[in-house]
Amino acid sequence: MTGRVLVTGASGFIGQPLVRVLVDAGWAVVAASRTRPERDPGVADWIEIDLLTEDPRRLTAAGRAEVLIHLAWVATPGVYSHSLENLDWLRSSVALSAAFLAEGGRRLVGAGTCLEYDRDGGAGSTGPRTLYAAAKHACRLVFERQVAAIEAASLAWPRIFFLLGPEDHPDRFAPSLARRLVAGEPAETSQGLVERDFIDVRDCARAIAALAGAEASGAFDIATGRGWRLRDLAEAIAGKAGRPDLLGVNPALDRPGEPPRLIGDPEPLRLATGFSPIYSIDQSITDLLQHWKDRRPNARHN
Amino acid sequence: MTGRVLVTGASGFIGQPLVRVLVDAGWAVVAASRTRPERDPGVADWIEIDLLTEDPRRLTAAGRAEVLIHLAWVATPGVYSHSLENLDWLRSSVALSAAFLAEGGRRLVGAGTCLEYDRDGGAGSTGPRTLYAAAKHACRLVFERQVAAIEAASLAWPRIFFLLGPEDHPDRFAPSLARRLVAGEPAETSQGLVERDFIDVRDCARAIAALAGAEASGAFDIATGRGWRLRDLAEAIAGKAGRPDLLGVNPALDRPGEPPRLIGDPEPLRLATGFSPIYSIDQSITDLLQHWKDRRPNARHN
Repeated sequence: MTGRVLVTGASGFIGQPLVRVLVDAGWAVVAASRTRPERDPGVADWIEIDLLTEDPRRLTAAGRAEVLIHLAWVATPGVYSHSLENLDWLRSSVALSAAFLAEGGRRLVGAGTCLEYDRDGGAGSTGPRTLYAAAKHACRLVFERQVAAIEAASLAWPRIFFLLGPEDHPDRFAPSLARRLVAGEPAETSQGLVERDFIDVRDCARAIAALAGAEASGAFDIATGRGWRLRDLAEAIAGKAGRPDLLGVNPALDRPGEPPRLIGDPEPLRLATGFSPIYSIDQSITDLLQHWKDRRPNARHN
Repeated sequence: MTGRVLVTGASGFIGQPLVRVLVDAGWAVVAASRTRPERDPGVADWIEIDLLTEDPRRLTAAGRAEVLIHLAWVATPGVYSHSLENLDWLRSSVALSAAFLAEGGRRLVGAGTCLEYDRDGGAGSTGPRTLYAAAKHACRLVFERQVAAIEAASLAWPRIFFLLGPEDHPDRFAPSLARRLVAGEPAETSQGLVERDFIDVRDCARAIAALAGAEASGAFDIATGRGWRLRDLAEAIAGKAGRPDLLGVNPALDRPGEPPRLIGDPEPLRLATGFSPIYSIDQSITDLLQHWKDRRPNARHN
């Protein structure tokens, strides 16, 4: 199924490839973000709106979409985990989904997180460990009830695992390594014994687009099902960059309390949509390194 | 330890006995609620404030308290579980605690809930099942970080189990039965096979007062550790009312999806404060029935 889809956070790390996938698949895309990007990816409309301060009805009235994919949320590395802005995004998201459903929208696709699974496990643990994930969890509860109150409305709640992609924030794990290694600078990693499930952001975009066009309700891990130790990922990046000599291990960078394993289950998504990833981690790393090579001051631009 | 304590929700079901316990223990109590009660329980000050719309700094500046016990929250039976007001209370609570700490306050006592333990248990479960408990969980996460950022500040997070008390909302399980039985009306209960941990609201008030005067950080169940099947509680109430004949069982009242057991662990609270309950469930039921006898139209008033 395709039709008219409204995408918030459309200029973001996931939003950009998602808009491309949706446009290519034949969706009429109404994209929303605080500022419109320079290049128009072929959307039906691009609406500039600050969802934290403006009435979402301006967006939903202009969007007139059957499907809402709501990606906009605080995501700044080092800040998003416990920022109080999570509470503002929660409130704003609830108002947006209410406006969307009141406008006749029927399919809601959220943006959950694998950190919803990250509980500290102690006797006092009753929910996610970060405010980011706790707010996302609360958001899902509200979305579920909003959708349940309207006939033929449905909610898909993708839980997004760890993303790899060229346009990722340069402070995140993989891009920060790639940037240094490409520049010939030493790069440090923690001991990196924790395991994470990495998926290419373009596959994440394909998965979310698949959910937008499906009818299945519930939560769906956006993941490969395979774990990478951070250390192994770092070594793979350094190896492919041809500079394993630059990679050093600094145990002081280990963050105690991090969950040892966060690995998703791709089966529910595959069963609901037929989705499977097409980008190998090798490809993701190659593209990430190429991105940073292209950005070097002396890089040749074609 | 006693000193100056600010209590929000002071006119509520827990707030009223709590203020009495604190005053009796020698605390200077600054009580806050939307409307001041008729009888003054001997507080230092009573401040009328609507925390959902007014700046909390008016309260914390007037309070100048070392301890904040924050009870105010949406609690209407049948509404509170999924009301969006939970999000307003979350935001408002975070602003209040920030104002309290900025004003020099150092001991924060929240009001968590046993429903934080109520997760649906399925693969998609990542946190509490109700928005009420999810918002309380998120509130605790924020309080913990606010307190961690200030030297010598601490947080106690009582998780309150099921309360019994004369002044309880008449629509709740035990009072609704007591009211009907005392009036000689038939009363229906579900099959009532789920087990719950009931504690007298006056013991809950004593427990929270004990936490206010302690230094221990963390979450503490306010509970007896003993489970009562709802059916058995209903029969105990009917028996003590002398009208077991009026009690009927209606399986249609069973609520599917309710957790089969919610029983607390009183040990952490006992270890931290020495607290143990003094009201038996027998006493709670006697007082509940007496309350409704006193309210009957033909009751004698002394």
